[in-house]
Amino acid sequence: MIRIGLDAMGGDFAPEVVVKGAVMALDAIAEDCRIVLFGDKEEIRSILAKEGCSTDRFEIVATSEIIEMGDHPVRAFQQKPNSSIAVGFRHLAEGEIDGLASAGSTGAVMVGSTQVVKAIEGVIRPAISTLIPTTAGRSALLLDVGLNIDCKADVLEQYALIGSVYAKSVLGIEKPRVALLNIGTEPTKGNLQIRAAYELLQLGSEAGKYNFVGNVEASHIFTSEVADVIVCDGFVGNTILKLSEGLYSINAQHGHTNSFWEGLNYEHTGGTPVLGINAPVILGHGKSTAQAIKSMVLATEHAIRSNIVEHLQEAFK
Amino acid sequence: MIRIGLDAMGGDFAPEVVVKGAVMALDAIAEDCRIVLFGDKEEIRSILAKEGCSTDRFEIVATSEIIEMGDHPVRAFQQKPNSSIAVGFRHLAEGEIDGLASAGSTGAVMVGSTQVVKAIEGVIRPAISTLIPTTAGRSALLLDVGLNIDCKADVLEQYALIGSVYAKSVLGIEKPRVALLNIGTEPTKGNLQIRAAYELLQLGSEAGKYNFVGNVEASHIFTSEVADVIVCDGFVGNTILKLSEGLYSINAQHGHTNSFWEGLNYEHTGGTPVLGINAPVILGHGKSTAQAIKSMVLATEHAIRSNIVEHLQEAFK
Repeated sequence: MIRIGLDAMGGDFAPEVVVKGAVMALDAIAEDCRIVLFGDKEEIRSILAKEGCSTDRFEIVATSEIIEMGDHPVRAFQQKPNSSIAVGFRHLAEGEIDGLASAGSTGAVMVGSTQVVKAIEGVIRPAISTLIPTTAGRSALLLDVGLNIDCKADVLEQYALIGSVYAKSVLGIEKPRVALLNIGTEPTKGNLQIRAAYELLQLGSEAGKYNFVGNVEASHIFTSEVADVIVCDGFVGNTILKLSEGLYSINAQHGHTNSFWEGLNYEHTGGTPVLGINAPVILGHGKSTAQAIKSMVLATEHAIRSNIVEHLQEAFK
Repeated sequence: MIRIGLDAMGGDFAPEVVVKGAVMALDAIAEDCRIVLFGDKEEIRSILAKEGCSTDRFEIVATSEIIEMGDHPVRAFQQKPNSSIAVGFRHLAEGEIDGLASAGSTGAVMVGSTQVVKAIEGVIRPAISTLIPTTAGRSALLLDVGLNIDCKADVLEQYALIGSVYAKSVLGIEKPRVALLNIGTEPTKGNLQIRAAYELLQLGSEAGKYNFVGNVEASHIFTSEVADVIVCDGFVGNTILKLSEGLYSINAQHGHTNSFWEGLNYEHTGGTPVLGINAPVILGHGKSTAQAIKSMVLATEHAIRSNIVEHLQEAFK
């Protein structure tokens, strides 16, 4: 039995939209899965009743507090031990659930990830990542997309390994091509930090840790011609993510959609995996719709089944 | 009489395509303009003959060397004093032309800009900038887009002033809204350098130097809802530019075009102005087509007429 934890109180439209998304997910997850909702039991029951969904299709863990978007993440985590996020992470750390999804406060999810679930031994800094579509039809992984906005070269080097393990175990790519995001393709391009990372990545590739293919320019990350895994610092990665989302929205307003652009629609991608910690955690968009919540639950199931955490623990041994 | 200098030997398809573009520009520039071509006189004449264009419609300054893309920019500039770029910049510095456009080696153009034309007194680091389209129909200015990949806070602060002066004098925006590109809208977002820049920008805005409106996320730079001038370091700006170009190409391949997306087509934007130096210089795309060269010539004429250089010199007094 796989238990997928879902923070029912996280997100701009929680709990209504989260519970609705959970109901939508029920028919999409496998039979051996169970969704565990963390949140206000009465509210959850009342929404389920409105949806015409039997309460016993879920496990519900009653929580009495909510970490708001404006709360200081570290303080809120301590001061609200009965919040849906804090309780969810305790359950995750104790193995009572197999993965956790939340569209709540990014800061609080990161506190739970690093202080309760904790980084895998050997990982300097966990990352948040995102799958981006390519015109070749398959996805590429971009990391970090906002957790570490100042990445030293050794952190970027580890992201190559983390991304490579993810691409192998979750995306099923046998020998993922790992590239460093840069403003030119030549090895001498970039600032000191990027050039230092380039050298470390070459050494790591020679040592057989991953398959480093060199620099990739932002113009080529969506073609799949260069890389399956794209490594960058969180400032640049977050900018790429937001720029792409902005252009997706503009296209959508013009009625320009196709399978490539829909790959940039957060409603279908299901959130960003937190990688490098001892359990599967998926962080959703604050403005998640029910469709986005459903996708996030499915992404969590997929992450659990892929054994990505065990593969990463093995890689960092 | 306005003299627009054009490096006829610069670009992947020079001199043919550059001269063709110059011929196309003849009917678009005003009557008081003259295009001055720097390059191999015989080659230029032969291309003009093929185009059925009289040689005397241009001034031609004969040059005998070419700085190749693979050349080391600083060394090439010294070792090839008779190259089209070196001769062009000397003419520009001596006032024999009023502006210079080149689709040649970026590095060599930057050497000419900073060592021959030189930075305006008070400007720490010149910038290269690009006009981006917005869904509101008007353009916004993004800088730096690749010249300074490690920008300290005081350099970013100056870019706010440079961008603001450009938006006023070239784009005709009365009180341009200047924003700092960041990964969140709150003042506390970003790394140390960005937060320090935020503070300097607040002080500069309070002192009346420009109208700083705070942070802008990459998702909102194309809407014109937040800013007319977007300040970032050259690594991030170049990444934004290349990502946008990549997505433009993908859309174009799917036949998705409209006036917004065409604003990202380098063939129409005419290259990136080098700002903060003592003369108008426009840097074109290496792969420029004749249409792109024509746009670059027009952009140079526009830069000369706007007196952007005088306005910047005034602002930094």
